[in-house]
Amino acid sequence: MSEIQPKAVVLLSGGLDSATVLAVAQQRGFECYTVAFDYGQRHRSELAAAEQIALAAQVARHQIITIDMSGIGGSALTDSSIAVPESAEQGIPVTYVPARNTIFLSLALGVAEVVGADHIFIGVNAVDYSGYPDCRPAFIDAFAALANLATKAGVEGRIQHIETPLLDLGKDQIIELGCSLGVNYAHTVSCYQADDSGRACSRCDSCRLRSDGFARAGLSDPTRYQAAAQKSTR
Amino acid sequence: MSEIQPKAVVLLSGGLDSATVLAVAQQRGFECYTVAFDYGQRHRSELAAAEQIALAAQVARHQIITIDMSGIGGSALTDSSIAVPESAEQGIPVTYVPARNTIFLSLALGVAEVVGADHIFIGVNAVDYSGYPDCRPAFIDAFAALANLATKAGVEGRIQHIETPLLDLGKDQIIELGCSLGVNYAHTVSCYQADDSGRACSRCDSCRLRSDGFARAGLSDPTRYQAAAQKSTR
Repeated sequence: MSEIQPKAVVLLSGGLDSATVLAVAQQRGFECYTVAFDYGQRHRSELAAAEQIALAAQVARHQIITIDMSGIGGSALTDSSIAVPESAEQGIPVTYVPARNTIFLSLALGVAEVVGADHIFIGVNAVDYSGYPDCRPAFIDAFAALANLATKAGVEGRIQHIETPLLDLGKDQIIELGCSLGVNYAHTVSCYQADDSGRACSRCDSCRLRSDGFARAGLSDPTRYQAAAQKSTR
Repeated sequence: MSEIQPKAVVLLSGGLDSATVLAVAQQRGFECYTVAFDYGQRHRSELAAAEQIALAAQVARHQIITIDMSGIGGSALTDSSIAVPESAEQGIPVTYVPARNTIFLSLALGVAEVVGADHIFIGVNAVDYSGYPDCRPAFIDAFAALANLATKAGVEGRIQHIETPLLDLGKDQIIELGCSLGVNYAHTVSCYQADDSGRACSRCDSCRLRSDGFARAGLSDPTRYQAAAQKSTR
């Protein structure tokens, strides 16, 4: 009874992947400190989704960190002058946000150091790293190496672990895992251009991956679509 | 005449070190994009100093990126409930901001990717890395390794260089270098608890290092001190 529960920082975007990761971290016995980022993303409703997921999971603390990335620009997700593509792209997608995971993991590292967490969970996975450089296993390994040199905790010999439980899973496997852990995917928002109440467009890359994942898992998809989107998908 | 000038992102805090680094980068022929961070630091006048330095140096663009690090806390520089120490400390100082340079370099990496800069300049040096883990050469090397895995530019084979021209210099050598390049140190603010007009306390670690550096370089120190500080130093 007197055992101290280990702490983890969990990057919680409000999407399907990170909601699953949070469930995995809790199932592994971690007291979870969730962090969402307000980085000027056009899909603002994912921030509300993250709060709802954190509340439902009864995390130790949920925190929204604001970063002004609009000044960096260069992505369809933060620059309103670049459209979100509605068909598959070759190579690195325009929804790639320059250095995003490096920035998010760095801030998570700061939080981890202050709360005394030796584990940071992030939902990168096989679907992502086909396109985004900062989701690849080599990137995660390099960040872990950096983390252990970057902090006071590292100097004092505490190892910081970057946990990527979804790394080798496809979208259908992620959904199956989450369902087995009781994740309520109705709380999550995946769409890159969701409306203010979290209803999805059905056409962006992220919507298509999600819908396909539920179909392949043979599970019903609780996604709420925008009126126009419903017409086109029915 | 038609040669394209290479671009660099320069982390410009408003202090003595980064002002010197900017002068080095310009002397090496880079078109400089300077970045300052508004991270809730108590020494707010360094942001005004950074703007003044950037203006005097006629940089291509100066940008202030806001990050809400007060939610991270854990440092005398961002948490008003922790006092700035006025005598030398053993080990890692309480002015250490968790993961600060990791966060700053990550954001600089995003800027570099968008503006097309293959060089990021940061003013870490021997004085710093005696105390701060994220100023050590091994940390810088680990960040460079990460940077080349983290970005679209890296995937496309462009190498990102993390430039640390002050790495092996003492404060007096930095000041000598800057003076030889025409840096006006009257524009810089080093004090951790400078007042709104940039006048220094004379007592914090950073003030003492600066004052000692000018003395050892045999150069006159243009630092403006607060009235109470002047009494104690005269």
